[in-house]
Amino acid sequence: MKPSEGRNRVVIEEVSPMIDGGARPVCRIVGDVIHMTAAIFADGHDHLAARLNYRHASERKWRSVPMVFVNNDLWEGSFRVDRLGEWIFTLEAWIDHFDTWASDLRKRLAAQPIPAQNGQNASAVAQDIPLALRSGALLIRAASKRASGADARKLEKFAASIEALAREEHPHYEDPLTDEIVSLTARYPDLTLATRYEKELPVRVDRERARFSAWYELFPRSASTVPGKHGTFADVELQVPEIAAMGFDVLYLPPIHPIGHAYRKGPNNATVAREGDLGSPWAIGDAAIFAQDPAGSRAKDDDGGHKSIHPQLGTFADFDRLVASAAAHQMEIALDIAFQCSPDHPWVTKHPDWFVIRPDGSIQYAENPPKKYQDIYPLNFESSDWRSLWSELYSIFEFWIKRGVKIFRVDNPHTKALPFWDWCLGELHEKYPDAIFLAEAFTRPHVMYALARRGFTQSYTYFTWRTTKPELVDYLEEITRPPVSDFFKPNFWPNTPDILHKSLQDGGRPAFMQRLILAATLTANYGVYGPAYELGENAPAKPAPGKTESEEYLDSEKYEIRQRDRNASGSLVPLITKLNAIRRANPALQSNESLQFHETDNPSLICYSKTTPKCENTILVAVNLDPFQEQAGWVHLVGSEIGIAEDQQFAVEDLLTGAKYSWHGFTNFVALKPETQPAHILRIVRDGA
Amino acid sequence: MKPSEGRNRVVIEEVSPMIDGGARPVCRIVGDVIHMTAAIFADGHDHLAARLNYRHASERKWRSVPMVFVNNDLWEGSFRVDRLGEWIFTLEAWIDHFDTWASDLRKRLAAQPIPAQNGQNASAVAQDIPLALRSGALLIRAASKRASGADARKLEKFAASIEALAREEHPHYEDPLTDEIVSLTARYPDLTLATRYEKELPVRVDRERARFSAWYELFPRSASTVPGKHGTFADVELQVPEIAAMGFDVLYLPPIHPIGHAYRKGPNNATVAREGDLGSPWAIGDAAIFAQDPAGSRAKDDDGGHKSIHPQLGTFADFDRLVASAAAHQMEIALDIAFQCSPDHPWVTKHPDWFVIRPDGSIQYAENPPKKYQDIYPLNFESSDWRSLWSELYSIFEFWIKRGVKIFRVDNPHTKALPFWDWCLGELHEKYPDAIFLAEAFTRPHVMYALARRGFTQSYTYFTWRTTKPELVDYLEEITRPPVSDFFKPNFWPNTPDILHKSLQDGGRPAFMQRLILAATLTANYGVYGPAYELGENAPAKPAPGKTESEEYLDSEKYEIRQRDRNASGSLVPLITKLNAIRRANPALQSNESLQFHETDNPSLICYSKTTPKCENTILVAVNLDPFQEQAGWVHLVGSEIGIAEDQQFAVEDLLTGAKYSWHGFTNFVALKPETQPAHILRIVRDGA
Repeated sequence: MKPSEGRNRVVIEEVSPMIDGGARPVCRIVGDVIHMTAAIFADGHDHLAARLNYRHASERKWRSVPMVFVNNDLWEGSFRVDRLGEWIFTLEAWIDHFDTWASDLRKRLAAQPIPAQNGQNASAVAQDIPLALRSGALLIRAASKRASGADARKLEKFAASIEALAREEHPHYEDPLTDEIVSLTARYPDLTLATRYEKELPVRVDRERARFSAWYELFPRSASTVPGKHGTFADVELQVPEIAAMGFDVLYLPPIHPIGHAYRKGPNNATVAREGDLGSPWAIGDAAIFAQDPAGSRAKDDDGGHKSIHPQLGTFADFDRLVASAAAHQMEIALDIAFQCSPDHPWVTKHPDWFVIRPDGSIQYAENPPKKYQDIYPLNFESSDWRSLWSELYSIFEFWIKRGVKIFRVDNPHTKALPFWDWCLGELHEKYPDAIFLAEAFTRPHVMYALARRGFTQSYTYFTWRTTKPELVDYLEEITRPPVSDFFKPNFWPNTPDILHKSLQDGGRPAFMQRLILAATLTANYGVYGPAYELGENAPAKPAPGKTESEEYLDSEKYEIRQRDRNASGSLVPLITKLNAIRRANPALQSNESLQFHETDNPSLICYSKTTPKCENTILVAVNLDPFQEQAGWVHLVGSEIGIAEDQQFAVEDLLTGAKYSWHGFTNFVALKPETQPAHILRIVRDGA
Repeated sequence: MKPSEGRNRVVIEEVSPMIDGGARPVCRIVGDVIHMTAAIFADGHDHLAARLNYRHASERKWRSVPMVFVNNDLWEGSFRVDRLGEWIFTLEAWIDHFDTWASDLRKRLAAQPIPAQNGQNASAVAQDIPLALRSGALLIRAASKRASGADARKLEKFAASIEALAREEHPHYEDPLTDEIVSLTARYPDLTLATRYEKELPVRVDRERARFSAWYELFPRSASTVPGKHGTFADVELQVPEIAAMGFDVLYLPPIHPIGHAYRKGPNNATVAREGDLGSPWAIGDAAIFAQDPAGSRAKDDDGGHKSIHPQLGTFADFDRLVASAAAHQMEIALDIAFQCSPDHPWVTKHPDWFVIRPDGSIQYAENPPKKYQDIYPLNFESSDWRSLWSELYSIFEFWIKRGVKIFRVDNPHTKALPFWDWCLGELHEKYPDAIFLAEAFTRPHVMYALARRGFTQSYTYFTWRTTKPELVDYLEEITRPPVSDFFKPNFWPNTPDILHKSLQDGGRPAFMQRLILAATLTANYGVYGPAYELGENAPAKPAPGKTESEEYLDSEKYEIRQRDRNASGSLVPLITKLNAIRRANPALQSNESLQFHETDNPSLICYSKTTPKCENTILVAVNLDPFQEQAGWVHLVGSEIGIAEDQQFAVEDLLTGAKYSWHGFTNFVALKPETQPAHILRIVRDGA
């Protein structure tokens, strides 16, 4: 034991927030205040003091803020993270002998008998006071030795004056402690025997878009308005103003890399492609475009793999223009990073040891026996050459970051080794603290959360499959509260190119509206795959052999060009535009921490609220979950969560329709029609708001 | 990163049970089976395997047992701790390539077309099978290299036969895997890339009495039957057969050390003692008995402090006889260890630096201004000489352990530094694994639990102040379930020399019966302070100035001799005797893990059960919490917890009265009279039991 360790009487435990015992960061957004709590206690009845120490990882000097006692040995402290990147916090606590002494002195003084009344007893009881004063003077003098300059001189003077008082004999003493003595002495605590919490806990601070974003996914190759023509980045660029006008922040493109030829899939995932079939963008890699470069003018990186662009989409210059054009419309381009290869990927010949080699020397394609996915070679994270594999994968992110992309959607991250993500995303966050990574982690809960803790900024969720009220309530309460919300940021997608849920297949346009409103208001991050979504496209693919249903789209855009007019009659563009405008105008909808469900007496009616911390902006949402019938019922508000008193009369404004309603107290009636008004998004109108 | 670390794809987390992140031991009893769970997962779809490794701390070699998949990435394993002292466990998990391959092979084989039907397709689909067989042969051969002797030869033979099969061309393959190949290969897993859990988790294994014990506290100085005569160890010895006959396991004595004279307290805690007043046994130390030793025959340790015996109680020989006599009656003597000193304690002169010295050179007595406890000097755990203080305190336990005492009740442990207990109890448990320490931790929950985690085997609790049904249910559900039950063993006391609760003061004999039955059946460890308890003594002391109530006894035995006849008319001796006999005869009552509350429709009726794991022995207890009125009502059983079906007819036997009742299903009626039948203790009578 270290010389003082046995005397560090204060115990610090139950420190929160903390992820993985402090091995991985708590996640917050720049500008957030971190509220930290700990159980702090010692033996006996001495008073304690504690402080929170924190710094940005790039700083050397710690900043400190006093912790405050709450109750039952719990203390709290808070600090603001005003800069991107990693922060660190820890705490220390100590016995506050001065405060203990001051408190005891006051009790002694209060217990003095009134002097004139009982002279004899008075001196007996009071006789401890001079001695107590001498003890206090020693404590104040010790503080003066830890201080310097004017503070030291002041403290020394206080100590001397208290000593002088101790030398006088009084039948009754007045309290010699001024606020100044108390606060000045507290400023120079004796930390010799302080307990320092054994861990320094990390916080990762991301930018606002990590918490609040609206994503729009489209296939660039479908972007041409010329029937049947392969779309290009230039075609996408033409759509940028319209997508931005809908209110999206992120325009996300499936893989833009060259597509392999070997075992290319045809429309509707046909095993054999016909001449001219385009294949799946996720079958990445076509070394031929590099090898056949006649002028030899391609960059070394531009070898037909993950750092190349599919020739039919355009050039790097076209891509750069698209990125710039999105930026000019306050949007960002997000790329899809899928770490897998077509048999034509350059790594297949350059790094066969990055794959699993079969006994006949061939490379193992993806399979789930007896199903074969011969157009895809998975990477082998047990490769003995794993270090160069890791380094190359990392460099792919860096390559695109350097081209101006700061947001990545990562395909199937749960099929890549977790230690890889731990390292790769750790490095990327450190070097590029404004980068955002969305995990397509459609996998089991432990793995989904493990990926988030290893650095994915946002994650796809089970929202797509949570359709009933209890399912939604349970799931949302899990993911929007600590400990999950300390590391996991959900991004809700009502559809993706892989998932056309049964509820959309069956529920038609009302279901599309309901699910859109839920996604856009339940969580601050959401996205849609369009223009299939705007058009309520809901024809499923033929079920696979032996299955009765499919969640795939019929004539899926994954395998062919699908040109659509998002402004066709009945399009949801106006609703989407309104929802995104509502989200931007109402800070309550820009984070998830305040989400509160309110009971309804109808299982098809779900009601919830979000609010800013002081209820300056409060949104109440009621959604009819039934796409076929009008549903009505009573909503029972948890008034305390939204600043409403039991008998309060208040106005609410429906931000979807502009209608105003007068509500009263905790119980109010709603009726919602699937086709015309599937939901209320109500802003509580407060005096002066 | 270590050479393989990046390739250790398996993640191990949420390991349970674990205390303080593995820094302190989980507590169990010798013979217990430790059920351990963990979340174990990896990327992708490969099959995993895991094993639990464990050993006694004194062993060098690990034992292993396979872990079993439960669901949702959770695995479990268990091992039996068949020896006292510290055990250690950890785990490792790995990708099971052989099991993955075997499972895939079976899917491939199952997908083979029937040969005669479709010859063309058959060969196409089947062609992967020979290659798959070759892959498997490589895995089996690798296992043979890890094996030796006959196993190695067998595995090599299997590998060769599977290779041979791969060389043959079959239109249809039969499954070549036998159970023997599978289990033999699994016995030699490839652990090259196994993930080893980073912690080795400790378990402290105590003896049975740590979990199941009945304590009886008495003041030896009141033990004489000669009116007014100071009792001795010899007088206590005379009572041993009677106390043992009541069924107690532990006979616990307040401090037996010399009592100081300075500021000695008189009866009823009077500030000034009269001539002949005996003082409080907790004012420990009288150096005079050593200094005035005329023959100089006392041992150095026997200096009038914590290693001495109060002369009026007897000699060390008398004490040894008492210990032996208790042992002959299957009881143990427990001593009260109170680390504090009277002003006459030898340490005051020998080690003044172990106390707080005031500016005038005097030693600081205990005080809570303006109250003074001048007969007590607390120890200063911030002393610069803390190492020798710690060492001396430790040696006190060791001193009495060497005299045959293995059970200690520790007075006010929460006023001694927590790092001290961490060290002291750690050392004692290691050296004396059969020692038991009961913490008199009447303090805040965090401190109470922190003491338990630092090595106290049992703890006093808040039971004394939990009197209503919801209070009892909430508290018991907290302390009898993990995580608390993994480190905290409650010991319920309806009274102590310090606490005569209001409910006993007001409720009279029925209240004494009710609280006794609750204590003896809710938790496996309980105790009473007698003979005050047997006699239902309930007169409180005069309230302190400014207070309206006191929890102290009137004429408290802490300050004077109180001779009582525990067999006086109306004594609870018969009830206590019956309760202890019931506890010993019914294993269900010997631990707390199975405690289950059952609803009643009367707030004054509490009902709960305890059962052995397979319901061989099940006890249902119903207690009337009202000491004044008969209470009746319906009890609604949680049948699943006690092996009763909804419509089952079953017999119960009241172990207090011998009466039998026929019960039916989950809902039954009880009526309890405070004076004559305050409770049912029902054993469920099962076929053959």
